[in-house]
Amino acid sequence: MPATDSVSEDITTDEFLGGQLRIRQPRRGYRAGIDPVMLAAGVPARPGDSVLDLGCGVGVAALCLGRRVPDLRLAGLELQPAYADLARRNGAENALDFEVIEGDLSDLPQTLRERRFDHVIANPPYFDRTASTRASEPGRETAMGENTPLTTWVKQAARRCVPGGYVSLIHRADRLPELLSEASRHLGSIEVLPLIPRKGRDARLVLVRARKGGRAAFRLHDGWVMHEGEAHPGDRENYTTATACILRLGEALPFPG
Amino acid sequence: MPATDSVSEDITTDEFLGGQLRIRQPRRGYRAGIDPVMLAAGVPARPGDSVLDLGCGVGVAALCLGRRVPDLRLAGLELQPAYADLARRNGAENALDFEVIEGDLSDLPQTLRERRFDHVIANPPYFDRTASTRASEPGRETAMGENTPLTTWVKQAARRCVPGGYVSLIHRADRLPELLSEASRHLGSIEVLPLIPRKGRDARLVLVRARKGGRAAFRLHDGWVMHEGEAHPGDRENYTTATACILRLGEALPFPG
Repeated sequence: MPATDSVSEDITTDEFLGGQLRIRQPRRGYRAGIDPVMLAAGVPARPGDSVLDLGCGVGVAALCLGRRVPDLRLAGLELQPAYADLARRNGAENALDFEVIEGDLSDLPQTLRERRFDHVIANPPYFDRTASTRASEPGRETAMGENTPLTTWVKQAARRCVPGGYVSLIHRADRLPELLSEASRHLGSIEVLPLIPRKGRDARLVLVRARKGGRAAFRLHDGWVMHEGEAHPGDRENYTTATACILRLGEALPFPG
Repeated sequence: MPATDSVSEDITTDEFLGGQLRIRQPRRGYRAGIDPVMLAAGVPARPGDSVLDLGCGVGVAALCLGRRVPDLRLAGLELQPAYADLARRNGAENALDFEVIEGDLSDLPQTLRERRFDHVIANPPYFDRTASTRASEPGRETAMGENTPLTTWVKQAARRCVPGGYVSLIHRADRLPELLSEASRHLGSIEVLPLIPRKGRDARLVLVRARKGGRAAFRLHDGWVMHEGEAHPGDRENYTTATACILRLGEALPFPG
């Protein structure tokens, strides 16, 4: 049960990584789930690296990564001022150095156009087609909808990446063809790690990692299984041990070598 | 140990599907392995359907499919006359109706341009980059090399498919980005079944199934595991039971529903 924020009843404070991070986010609208946590776990960042989180929202992915890897220089781009404010506050309250820049991915602020990062990460918003209701909150609509084409996310991520640097994305598995088409135009050494809800099921999400200027062949890894067993046993959390280590202990998600 | 052909010492006769098919193929040059067998197992053909195998070689994929599903109208396109001749002979000797047309995928014979098929299948040739030696046989060079771009295979397969029909391809997993880019241009309802050598390993091959005019979202299935265990135990065959049922009994490879 999220705690109510003292300032506004529309903000909740939620724990991530087993309490290693406390994140303020709107009670309604886009709320971070496990996607940004899994994204952060898969980023091969080393201490001292610079990181740009495109569409950072309230900052969960960037801050999860900052909690796991010391001495990162974290930056985020966020379109919506209310989310950007929360992201700044979340950085400060979690004692992580997090520079949050307001701006549009399709029309980057000049300050970002002049910079390159060792890692660019993104969890592009998507509208869950399995949910038939239209989002009622405008903020949620922007964060969940797809006002910016997926191709723009990939292209801009590649542009902001240093040569030899890494782009890491998490997105719905059913968008993999578009992701790969666009990534192939700008990046190399592409790897896909499918996230499978349970053994034998289709991938729901894909983690895509690529390198700017990379020359290695494309790799499709065996799927990462999120939950034990064949069906969800009621309300009980049944993540696989390896997944729980990511979500509750803040461990890395190692891509196969 | 393959039996020597009575006519020529350069031809061997090999059993497929546990002896349900006997296939003549050149002793040297491109020799069919499990790829066309896995391809055929994944084709959702029903009795009476028409099937075109692009680049059919000596006919293993088409004939495996014809052995599993009764009353198919099987056709194959093959560039090299010697392979086309063997394909015709293999059809006749296995009592399967198999029309083999000689021609170039990039410049289809007129007889094929006027026809559409319920299923178009292909195992596009590839040069195994893990093997550093160049193929010494010209026939092998053509069959294993990539004289025709992969995109042409996908485009021509889509063109020869009836509306609502299926295209089924098997290829190296590291070419998935190109396959999906091109398939997305011409086909819908794309599904990928990764073939994983062993649990936890990268996919080596992918089975790609798509529908002409299909509207369903892309699906990435959990990987199909080919072999038991973590390492190859010497010479002993250790296919998983489900894989052995395909290779030795001629069963279907069911895509997840």
